[in-house]
Amino acid sequence: MAQTIDTDVCVVGAGLAGLSAARQLVDAGRDVVVLEARERVGGRVCTERLADGTVIDHGGQWLGPGQHRIARLAEEVGNPTFPTYADGDEVLCLGGRTYRFSGDPPLNPAVLLDLAQAQTRFDRLAVRVPLDAPWRADRAQELDSQTFDTWIRRNALTRGAREIFRVYSEGVFASDPADFSLLHALFYTHSGNGFAVLAGTRDGAQQDRFANGAQANAEGLAALLGDRVRLAQPVRRIDRRDEAVAVLTDDLLVSARDAIVAVPPPLAARIRYEPALPPARDQLLQRLPMGAVIKCHAIYDRPFWRDDGLTGQATSDEPPVKVVFDSSPPDGTPGILLAFVEGAHARALSGADPKERRDAVLGALATLFGPAARTPVEYLERDWTAEEWTRGCYAALFTPGTWTQHGPALREPVGRIHWAGTETATVWCGYMDGAIQSGERAAQEILTADA
Amino acid sequence: MAQTIDTDVCVVGAGLAGLSAARQLVDAGRDVVVLEARERVGGRVCTERLADGTVIDHGGQWLGPGQHRIARLAEEVGNPTFPTYADGDEVLCLGGRTYRFSGDPPLNPAVLLDLAQAQTRFDRLAVRVPLDAPWRADRAQELDSQTFDTWIRRNALTRGAREIFRVYSEGVFASDPADFSLLHALFYTHSGNGFAVLAGTRDGAQQDRFANGAQANAEGLAALLGDRVRLAQPVRRIDRRDEAVAVLTDDLLVSARDAIVAVPPPLAARIRYEPALPPARDQLLQRLPMGAVIKCHAIYDRPFWRDDGLTGQATSDEPPVKVVFDSSPPDGTPGILLAFVEGAHARALSGADPKERRDAVLGALATLFGPAARTPVEYLERDWTAEEWTRGCYAALFTPGTWTQHGPALREPVGRIHWAGTETATVWCGYMDGAIQSGERAAQEILTADA
Repeated sequence: MAQTIDTDVCVVGAGLAGLSAARQLVDAGRDVVVLEARERVGGRVCTERLADGTVIDHGGQWLGPGQHRIARLAEEVGNPTFPTYADGDEVLCLGGRTYRFSGDPPLNPAVLLDLAQAQTRFDRLAVRVPLDAPWRADRAQELDSQTFDTWIRRNALTRGAREIFRVYSEGVFASDPADFSLLHALFYTHSGNGFAVLAGTRDGAQQDRFANGAQANAEGLAALLGDRVRLAQPVRRIDRRDEAVAVLTDDLLVSARDAIVAVPPPLAARIRYEPALPPARDQLLQRLPMGAVIKCHAIYDRPFWRDDGLTGQATSDEPPVKVVFDSSPPDGTPGILLAFVEGAHARALSGADPKERRDAVLGALATLFGPAARTPVEYLERDWTAEEWTRGCYAALFTPGTWTQHGPALREPVGRIHWAGTETATVWCGYMDGAIQSGERAAQEILTADA
Repeated sequence: MAQTIDTDVCVVGAGLAGLSAARQLVDAGRDVVVLEARERVGGRVCTERLADGTVIDHGGQWLGPGQHRIARLAEEVGNPTFPTYADGDEVLCLGGRTYRFSGDPPLNPAVLLDLAQAQTRFDRLAVRVPLDAPWRADRAQELDSQTFDTWIRRNALTRGAREIFRVYSEGVFASDPADFSLLHALFYTHSGNGFAVLAGTRDGAQQDRFANGAQANAEGLAALLGDRVRLAQPVRRIDRRDEAVAVLTDDLLVSARDAIVAVPPPLAARIRYEPALPPARDQLLQRLPMGAVIKCHAIYDRPFWRDDGLTGQATSDEPPVKVVFDSSPPDGTPGILLAFVEGAHARALSGADPKERRDAVLGALATLFGPAARTPVEYLERDWTAEEWTRGCYAALFTPGTWTQHGPALREPVGRIHWAGTETATVWCGYMDGAIQSGERAAQEILTADA
């Protein structure tokens, strides 16, 4: 028999969204239970400590200017930040050739001009998308009726500029630009302050890192919540009635006045609701697939690329690795290269033999940083599409037609069930900062209704 | 405690796909259990009999040339067919004007030429998509990187031709052309023998109807299967092991050598699998949302439109009703107009007050067929997005990027779990005929592996 718990609010999911919601409710004097499927908190942030204490972030790891919520949380829980290593030249591999550069990429002037024009046009469209209601943008239907890929083909006229936009799509959305709506690309970019910020390191969304890893922020929140957080409790079912909800796991029945569901949309769809969700919500949840990313860490005794005056950061149009960062600890020991395999390439390599995948990734790093990259002392990877309790990263993608036909259902509570998660954020959608905003907003909905 | 049943094959879903699979397995001497969530068989085919015996098909209802499997089944179970009423003129409402016509639609020559050219171009592209592997089409990636809407905007140059293509999308896919991939539009059209066949009544996919309703075909199959079919048994979980599967409902534990899951993709995703599905299958299931349709029947004492020399068939660019058919019984008593509300219009009206929805539908019928249409003796409707055990119709739509990145996972068994359902058919995808093909193919996979 399931153990029964009575509480004010049951939060489903102990990622940053769910934990932030719970914290806000507890601060307002509410009784809260947080149910988490995994044996850890953090969701899409996940930190491993190697034997020597080195911090590896398998999930979200950066923060940048304008991300006040995650910065405040890190400060509160005592998790110092430090700059992503960015001294020296970057590497660019395009059309089979490898360049090093600092400042503007070494593209021919026609490509640079084309890229600058397309980027300006894209950012101008983006800032006109209302963050709280993308479906109300001017010409929303036209923007939502095409894929991001269609826009790129029409607006970036040179092969080089198109490749940079495709790398932007993979690096920022973990997805091919064919997979989602132009309106979503614009909304998401606006929510993160523009193309350059989302793609950038210094002054950009990859500017800083957490000394104790990103998961420590979630753990700090969980510590404040204490035994209100119940791990290893996947939610199977939510019974919704006019005056209460009952949230069921295999062991627990949590009876609450309200629930907040703070898990990725495809997982929210897989909970059994009694009665079933109304059509608007259900059809929305059918249309929010997750991106695909395999995050790979190659660990070396030293950051040897720095000797050559390289930052360790690279951009390539050559699959499977399109984006690389230096992800070493502050003191540079050990040296760590972080390689992203994303979108279609992640899907192709996800089912491959682990050795084949490792060889492909290390081969790509060797092309970019020389043969020394081929022999790390340790190699770690995390395939987020294989994570049962996330099933893809970084975030859900809005397929064409979804924002305009289903957008209003995104944050609309269904009776006493409220919806959180970074996908429901109006700022920094897809980022840790957005996750926190979404949780606080969902908590506020409940507190306002109570008042 | 759950009752335990041992069998050879457990089939999940008693629509035409699941029933056809079960029947083929039983014919080959296998032990089978079919688990169905609803209290009836048929899935997306669903017939109601009015007090006077009149047959109303709330779901799939037509068959046409080339649909040998459903025709054979109807003959076998003694369900005669009769032609859809099509004598007289059709009605076309375009740009605020209403025309009647027979043969070619009364469009100006420039629009007719544009439409003919676009349709020819579309069909030529369609026949080049390999039905068993759309991802191998020439330029597959380009075709899959854009929405059907993008193609329409580029290839139909007149407003009239674009509207006809949009009505095609709504009428054939129950979805706006923005919502799915061009490659899917082409595959689906090829699987049903072309634009004209899918859009057509005489010589088309709407040519004939079933005297006893479409569900009688499913009931005939179920009768052959007898107590192997268990109703009101929603499957909650499938445990998959190397040598067997265990399929669990609230009451039953069916232990089998193999399973066939024959439910719409979004529902297949909501079953709990232990262990979880591999990434390729899981990510595919995140990308197959269902279309939206509210099927509305207005029932009159007589088919009054026939007195005016009208077929009862209408096409309109005016929401919410774009497509209408005469759906009277063979003897024309009572007279029945069948109005489709589809795609975005179905979503908009799904949450509306029932009276408002009825008024909108009857108002549209009155515009097309005169004021008598406003006062039916009875009005019935079925919103398929609200059906807990379908959650949209007619079928799942492949969003951009899905066929090319995820297509190979569509029919690939996951261990001992095989996949059926009209979405997995290579002919008549989305139709009853395709459902039968898919079930027989899944059964054959198991029989071949056993041999």
